[in-house]
Amino acid sequence: MNLALGIDIGGTKISYALVDNNGIINGEVFKISTPKTSNEIKKLLKEIIKDFEEKVEFVAIATAGTVNNENNKVIGSTANLPEGYKEIDFSELSCKKVFVENDANCAAWAEYRIGASKGCKNSIMLTLGTGVGGGIIINGKLLKGRSGGAGEMHFAMSRNKRRQCTCGAWDCFEAYASGNGLRKTAIEITGNPVITTYNVVEGVKNGDMKSIEALNVWQNDIALGILGLANLFDTECFVLSGSMEKFVDVEEVEKTVNELVLTSKVKVYHAKAGNYAGMVGAVLLGNELL
Amino acid sequence: MNLALGIDIGGTKISYALVDNNGIINGEVFKISTPKTSNEIKKLLKEIIKDFEEKVEFVAIATAGTVNNENNKVIGSTANLPEGYKEIDFSELSCKKVFVENDANCAAWAEYRIGASKGCKNSIMLTLGTGVGGGIIINGKLLKGRSGGAGEMHFAMSRNKRRQCTCGAWDCFEAYASGNGLRKTAIEITGNPVITTYNVVEGVKNGDMKSIEALNVWQNDIALGILGLANLFDTECFVLSGSMEKFVDVEEVEKTVNELVLTSKVKVYHAKAGNYAGMVGAVLLGNELL
Repeated sequence: MNLALGIDIGGTKISYALVDNNGIINGEVFKISTPKTSNEIKKLLKEIIKDFEEKVEFVAIATAGTVNNENNKVIGSTANLPEGYKEIDFSELSCKKVFVENDANCAAWAEYRIGASKGCKNSIMLTLGTGVGGGIIINGKLLKGRSGGAGEMHFAMSRNKRRQCTCGAWDCFEAYASGNGLRKTAIEITGNPVITTYNVVEGVKNGDMKSIEALNVWQNDIALGILGLANLFDTECFVLSGSMEKFVDVEEVEKTVNELVLTSKVKVYHAKAGNYAGMVGAVLLGNELL
Repeated sequence: MNLALGIDIGGTKISYALVDNNGIINGEVFKISTPKTSNEIKKLLKEIIKDFEEKVEFVAIATAGTVNNENNKVIGSTANLPEGYKEIDFSELSCKKVFVENDANCAAWAEYRIGASKGCKNSIMLTLGTGVGGGIIINGKLLKGRSGGAGEMHFAMSRNKRRQCTCGAWDCFEAYASGNGLRKTAIEITGNPVITTYNVVEGVKNGDMKSIEALNVWQNDIALGILGLANLFDTECFVLSGSMEKFVDVEEVEKTVNELVLTSKVKVYHAKAGNYAGMVGAVLLGNELL
């Protein structure tokens, strides 16, 4: 079985492991805090790669940020990564081939190849966390767009400038469907300006009516966003991942979407490619594209 | 020069002409009222095709409705076409090869090959008429989706159920960006429940402030929709076509979008593939896909 080194570079930690070409992790997953500067990140990556280089066919990196269409540099959306990160040419980090792709795109690919959307050639993964990420697969290929940035889940859910989004625009899907969106919805419903996402989730567990209402409104916003995506992309299935996805009733969302969708009926699933879907997906994508 | 017979089947009329493989119409464009029943439509198409069959390499049909991925049958969205239309197998209408595709997709392809978005491999055409249609081109290929229905411009612009859309859902892009959307915006702004789209357009010409306000709100809604599409698809350029596009200040829309877009900057153009972009695009697509 051929092995690759999978690396996942996040804002707080870097994870890495040997991954075979079926997407199975071999042995331990190592974790280390993400250094504060780009030079230190580059140095660390070189050291990690050096330790494994001889054993692997190639190196596959999942990273925050937009990756260009040549899959060698990050070109945008690097809010959590230090200055200079965009200057790193990942292909120079190893004597072996290096593949790099956005982490949400990699995770979407892992779901498509070995996870919840396995075999669904037209599928979209939505990562519901503090924000919302996404990866879009069309006819068995990852949608990259003109420069590599496709899949930004920033489309307006309101014309009324109710919530400013992290991107600078107003009322993006992210501002409603994320964990932060749930918090903001709960503030609107409860009138409590300091309520947290955690409070809402606990409230739901304890049968608090306003928390349940907030969760339902949040879930309906997710369904509304998925409906629009389904009409645009004529997607077979949607996969929800991220820290917030476990609070979504996927059957209810699926039902709501299918009552109104104009294209084909959709399936909505919980993710199942696991916590390391990013690095695994990077290896699976690298396998096909390198 | 090889010729094809291009046919455009709309809800009110059927147009047809000989088109060469550069998309140039040869001679007259014929027009005839669309018959009231599917059997009559089928009979008429056979007669039209019979007259031209010997001169052409293939027959290319642009039609209202969703066309399946085998490009031989309409499978959805046939509001303006009679019952039974979905049963027509277009490939049986001629002894020559028959290509059929949705009219908005065909027009988008004509813009991409010979029109405003010529050479833009990632482009989206929006047809602003009574409703809103669309055709999406990704990496030089038409986006069809799972069943052929991709490109439905029905994504929510509001969570508040303000305007029911023709599709049954609420507050779709179509309900704001269409001619009907402009009328509804003008009703909200003027309080006049019987104002027409024509009244607004005339009002703008005459310097009526409320008409100008309505047009600006409408244009801003178009920009908001384009912003979301740009973030999702990382599109290079947008082309506006249809009866309403001439009222859009494309430079203003482009500026508004580019102030907030997360992916690459976009261009927004008026369509220029002409009134017969549907049939011409059908021939150009047929040329590549048959």
